[in-house]
Amino acid sequence: MSKPAVILLVDDSRMDVELTLDAFKEARLSNRIEVSYSGQEALDYLFGNEHFADRNRHPLPDLILLDLKMPGVDGFQVLQRIKGTPLIKRIPVVILTSSKEEGDRALSYDIGANSYLVKPVAFTGFVEVVRQIEDYWLTLNIGAPMTADDSA
Amino acid sequence: MSKPAVILLVDDSRMDVELTLDAFKEARLSNRIEVSYSGQEALDYLFGNEHFADRNRHPLPDLILLDLKMPGVDGFQVLQRIKGTPLIKRIPVVILTSSKEEGDRALSYDIGANSYLVKPVAFTGFVEVVRQIEDYWLTLNIGAPMTADDSA
Repeated sequence: MSKPAVILLVDDSRMDVELTLDAFKEARLSNRIEVSYSGQEALDYLFGNEHFADRNRHPLPDLILLDLKMPGVDGFQVLQRIKGTPLIKRIPVVILTSSKEEGDRALSYDIGANSYLVKPVAFTGFVEVVRQIEDYWLTLNIGAPMTADDSA
Repeated sequence: MSKPAVILLVDDSRMDVELTLDAFKEARLSNRIEVSYSGQEALDYLFGNEHFADRNRHPLPDLILLDLKMPGVDGFQVLQRIKGTPLIKRIPVVILTSSKEEGDRALSYDIGANSYLVKPVAFTGFVEVVRQIEDYWLTLNIGAPMTADDSA
């Protein structure tokens, strides 16, 4: 990859965001991480609204890490918008949540989540999960082009 | 997990199937692997047609590894059926193909592939990929329940 991958992290909990950023740092991963602290902010970023309009400064992410339980626009609504939008839907969305509930897992996959991970409790577990996310999604997995005129 | 995970491998190339099974063996992974040598066979398995009707003997898989280029019903058609069917759509589908073409990647994600991997050329690479598939999808990733009456 020529330039570092961009990850969009969507989580309303400042503590969990700090934990995730620290885990990326600890795992010595040098991706660019953009943080949205609400579902609405994530949608504004992804759809290039207002001050996110400049795609050079706010590039579409290669991966989205999405929390579910957020006040206002929640993770399910964000996921639904992403997976209902041409091109944007090609970006892998990994649910990263504290919920193990069957209903949340079912609904996430039904709406089109690419993967569903449960946040580990301990920091060392978090570092390992972040490393595996990086290894799988940004190294092994091959993304799709984000332009419409590329069908073979 | 109480019982070993079931992987459905869909590939018309007997050589690639052997390679994948050998890689699982080499990586000492003890999952149960069901093989479908055509897209139609995969659909018969997934939808419990004819001699696949007994779900105790032919359980729904926890993961599907799907080749794209197959004569008759191809991988895209299989993917479309899977992702268009309630409950079945919750099963993660990892495209495992020799094609790096942008159009194939775009179409796969557009239809709802969970992930897209390119088959490595060397056997050692294959073993590593199989190990990463196992680590990510059958250990880290949390699947969804396959029953309808579980909404939270």
